[in-house]
Amino acid sequence: MDSRSVYRRFSIAAFAAAAAVTLSSGAALAESPTLSKEAFDRATLLYFQQCAGCHGVLRKGATGKNLEPENMLRLGQRRLERIITHGTEGGMNNFDIMYSPEDITLLATYIQLEPPVPPEMSLAQMKERTVRHVELKDYPTKPMHGRNWKNFFLAIERDHGSVAIIDGDKHELVARVPTGYAVHVMKGVEHNKAVKHPNPEQVGRFWYTMGRDGKMTKIDLWQTPDKMLVAETQVAYDARDVAVSGDGKYVIGGGYWPPHAVIVDAHTMEPLKVVSARGVNVDGEYVNESRVAAIYDTPHASTWLVNMKELGQTWQIDYSDIDNLRIDKIDNSKYLHDGFFDPTGRYFQIAANASDQMVVIDANTRKLEAIIDTDLRPHPGPGANWIDPECGPVGGTPHLGVGKMTAWGNDPANRKDAAWKICYEVETDGPGLFIRTHPKSDYVWIDQTLHPEPEVQQSIKVIDKKTREIVKTIRLTDIEGQVAVHFEFNHDGTEVWASVWNRGDSLQPNGSMIIFDAKTLEVKGRVDGLYAPTGKFNVYNRSNHVT
Amino acid sequence: MDSRSVYRRFSIAAFAAAAAVTLSSGAALAESPTLSKEAFDRATLLYFQQCAGCHGVLRKGATGKNLEPENMLRLGQRRLERIITHGTEGGMNNFDIMYSPEDITLLATYIQLEPPVPPEMSLAQMKERTVRHVELKDYPTKPMHGRNWKNFFLAIERDHGSVAIIDGDKHELVARVPTGYAVHVMKGVEHNKAVKHPNPEQVGRFWYTMGRDGKMTKIDLWQTPDKMLVAETQVAYDARDVAVSGDGKYVIGGGYWPPHAVIVDAHTMEPLKVVSARGVNVDGEYVNESRVAAIYDTPHASTWLVNMKELGQTWQIDYSDIDNLRIDKIDNSKYLHDGFFDPTGRYFQIAANASDQMVVIDANTRKLEAIIDTDLRPHPGPGANWIDPECGPVGGTPHLGVGKMTAWGNDPANRKDAAWKICYEVETDGPGLFIRTHPKSDYVWIDQTLHPEPEVQQSIKVIDKKTREIVKTIRLTDIEGQVAVHFEFNHDGTEVWASVWNRGDSLQPNGSMIIFDAKTLEVKGRVDGLYAPTGKFNVYNRSNHVT
Repeated sequence: MDSRSVYRRFSIAAFAAAAAVTLSSGAALAESPTLSKEAFDRATLLYFQQCAGCHGVLRKGATGKNLEPENMLRLGQRRLERIITHGTEGGMNNFDIMYSPEDITLLATYIQLEPPVPPEMSLAQMKERTVRHVELKDYPTKPMHGRNWKNFFLAIERDHGSVAIIDGDKHELVARVPTGYAVHVMKGVEHNKAVKHPNPEQVGRFWYTMGRDGKMTKIDLWQTPDKMLVAETQVAYDARDVAVSGDGKYVIGGGYWPPHAVIVDAHTMEPLKVVSARGVNVDGEYVNESRVAAIYDTPHASTWLVNMKELGQTWQIDYSDIDNLRIDKIDNSKYLHDGFFDPTGRYFQIAANASDQMVVIDANTRKLEAIIDTDLRPHPGPGANWIDPECGPVGGTPHLGVGKMTAWGNDPANRKDAAWKICYEVETDGPGLFIRTHPKSDYVWIDQTLHPEPEVQQSIKVIDKKTREIVKTIRLTDIEGQVAVHFEFNHDGTEVWASVWNRGDSLQPNGSMIIFDAKTLEVKGRVDGLYAPTGKFNVYNRSNHVT
Repeated sequence: MDSRSVYRRFSIAAFAAAAAVTLSSGAALAESPTLSKEAFDRATLLYFQQCAGCHGVLRKGATGKNLEPENMLRLGQRRLERIITHGTEGGMNNFDIMYSPEDITLLATYIQLEPPVPPEMSLAQMKERTVRHVELKDYPTKPMHGRNWKNFFLAIERDHGSVAIIDGDKHELVARVPTGYAVHVMKGVEHNKAVKHPNPEQVGRFWYTMGRDGKMTKIDLWQTPDKMLVAETQVAYDARDVAVSGDGKYVIGGGYWPPHAVIVDAHTMEPLKVVSARGVNVDGEYVNESRVAAIYDTPHASTWLVNMKELGQTWQIDYSDIDNLRIDKIDNSKYLHDGFFDPTGRYFQIAANASDQMVVIDANTRKLEAIIDTDLRPHPGPGANWIDPECGPVGGTPHLGVGKMTAWGNDPANRKDAAWKICYEVETDGPGLFIRTHPKSDYVWIDQTLHPEPEVQQSIKVIDKKTREIVKTIRLTDIEGQVAVHFEFNHDGTEVWASVWNRGDSLQPNGSMIIFDAKTLEVKGRVDGLYAPTGKFNVYNRSNHVT
């Protein structure tokens, strides 16, 4: 064999493709429109705020379509403007309600240009961003207020950059904690059978928020209202979820960008370890922008379930020894979003929404258990489990793409016949985001927030667990622009809290919690003066896996 | 809080850095020298062949220094030419022996330009590159020759693109298998106590090669000499190592680029699963070019040890369920290179050569066991274990940076006092690559290939296990340009085979194996007519962990 032919073959195989990429992107740039530095920066920010969630910062597509310049140049400026303005049949919103015509023109141009690649973030950089507002030695040893903190509700005031702490007994605001831009999720310690908490009475005391800007804060519910923000750090530029270890030792934050998960000391908020999320997806293709979606502590093991949206993999990360870090990479389906455990705490049920599936992970064996085909884009949020008269234990989800609640059997130990099969479906008036119930309640609550008609998006449905019928449709508000969204039960399951707020005016304190009697379904109270309070978390229910 | 200030802060934090990167690289390009497309392509190839191994294709540095344009432009054309021509004190070779002055000028210019990023390789692309020369149904059911195949030696003829199959009993060439460009390593099944091979009599029959071009081939030693190449695939553009599962079901190949490991069906050579190697190193920094160094099957578990050079992590990958893939990421030290097991098969001893350390992994607990500080850049190759009169069981390594053999205790169960501490050192005349012994032998053999003087690089040292003294220095050749390198014992430990070949003329069949009597240390035979035969693998010894 002649060495030159070997080299020639190598040269062609390995580097010709790279050169071709360089040349073609150069060619594309030559034909592209241009933007000033100021306009480009503004477009980058607008894109990040409203587009990147579905399409990715590198615009490779995920829940939304691929928006790379090659494809966008083909559609052209006018067509792109129309799509952004009016939305699509595929489920994209009309953005004329939040963006001006000038900004829509700008975005249409921007997506025809090469996307800027955001920088990485090292562990050292994260450590520089760690601030302790209260030193550990100054933490109180008992609650500094006489309130029943286990029935507190923590409500995300997303656009306002704060978390409202609400007294669930008294229906009144206790504190407003400045958490920074757009908190997406918060978690406290949850009871774990494998990893005992050293101070069981403190389970539920500390809460950890994750902002869309990657900022993590630590909230101490025992503190006086003005001191509840005790520490913070930043682990990403774009992020969604967070979870705590069963012993309260570690908190893990998941980044959209950089694509990684970061294990942080839950006491000091010092970042300790970075785990890259980049990987090869279930189709065998490398994904640079591999975003970390939902993260949960598992009730029976010293592990977190870290869901890789683009990979279609759930990584079960074991925190018992973070220097010799065990990760079980469980292949399942794209694109993973959010999920919840079954009542036993063994099975994690998560939406692969772009695949129209619910994926079930067996967190005890660290393996895939089942995949359930649902309707268009399931989105369970914190989810709901209940007992169906025929199927036995079931879990349920609304859908982003259709007005429908789907329930499936989820007790393979006792009801193998029904497990991981659809038990029944209930049609609602419109697609929604959240479902919720409580073991003591006879009803399942579901919203319809994504329907375009005010009458529908302001109304929620109550389904009877026994008859499987919608027993009540409740319109929570008729104020123009307001929507009804998200439910949470109180400590003892006697109340259901639902949110109403104005999508287009989220920086005004015009949002409320409407509080229902869980039995009579009548309004029994409300908390006003909140800034767009979507997600809310009852301390007791969340610490005790009440789903 | 004002939303604009939040956005402004976000904008600055996340994207200013990205914009700065874009601008600075644009600025650098404007000042850079230029090359024609042809010259750039040639330089890319030359760089890949001789520079990328130490410096990386993205030139971030590893064993070698960072060669990114920012740093290279500062040194300038003339200084870079001088460094490439004469080498450095830090250990870089003088490249005037293999490159013309014109090529050195070209390379000096090339490294001042932005490195081209090679493409990714998907699972689908790998599948397209899979070829079966012999179908499974046509495999012979018994050896098709009367030879003692368990004493075959397989020798890598690197630059010639072939593997020489040599009869160890008869000292004669049996076959020359065309494996493609620059095979780096080959492996067969090794006896595994946790994962039984379904056909124990076939252990050692199939061998898998990994070429520097990422081509993997499967060799069947039962075939007639002209049909031994039975299948091939390609899993990377740049690669080094390969290993087989204990049951012979899977073979895993490690890529330098793309940075990933690929699990392949060992029967059909169909690629099945890609595991990205990209990750965050032990310093908390993201590494894009995270190269897969040595890979080994573990003798007591259904796992491979996959060593991540730049990360300073050993990933223990469990092949018992590749759809729910367990990986234990064991933090240790940069930059990992090659290693070997202790005689019990529990502890894997691997060089972190740029850290001047030997790292020890406990493959049973899947955790770091110890880190041993050695002299400059240890390089054990296939390694050597023996019994020292004082320390008990020891392992040993030569060094790339100094003429020294270092031996350390490696029996924590019975000799905790000596385990993972340096037992003794022996100075040789020059830095070397390989060490080898056999349980039945009284001696340890070590080469000195990296010393610049012909007299030293052509001579090897024999160390007495009992006295720890060098008992013999043997000059294997005095032909100009030839070096002595690498040892392998035969099946029963009675012979030691050493290689001699000409570095500057590796495409001529002027290389040989010199065969020594392991007891008398006298030459007892030779095999000539080989093309630069560096690494050689005795079927029996490698299948049975004889180290």
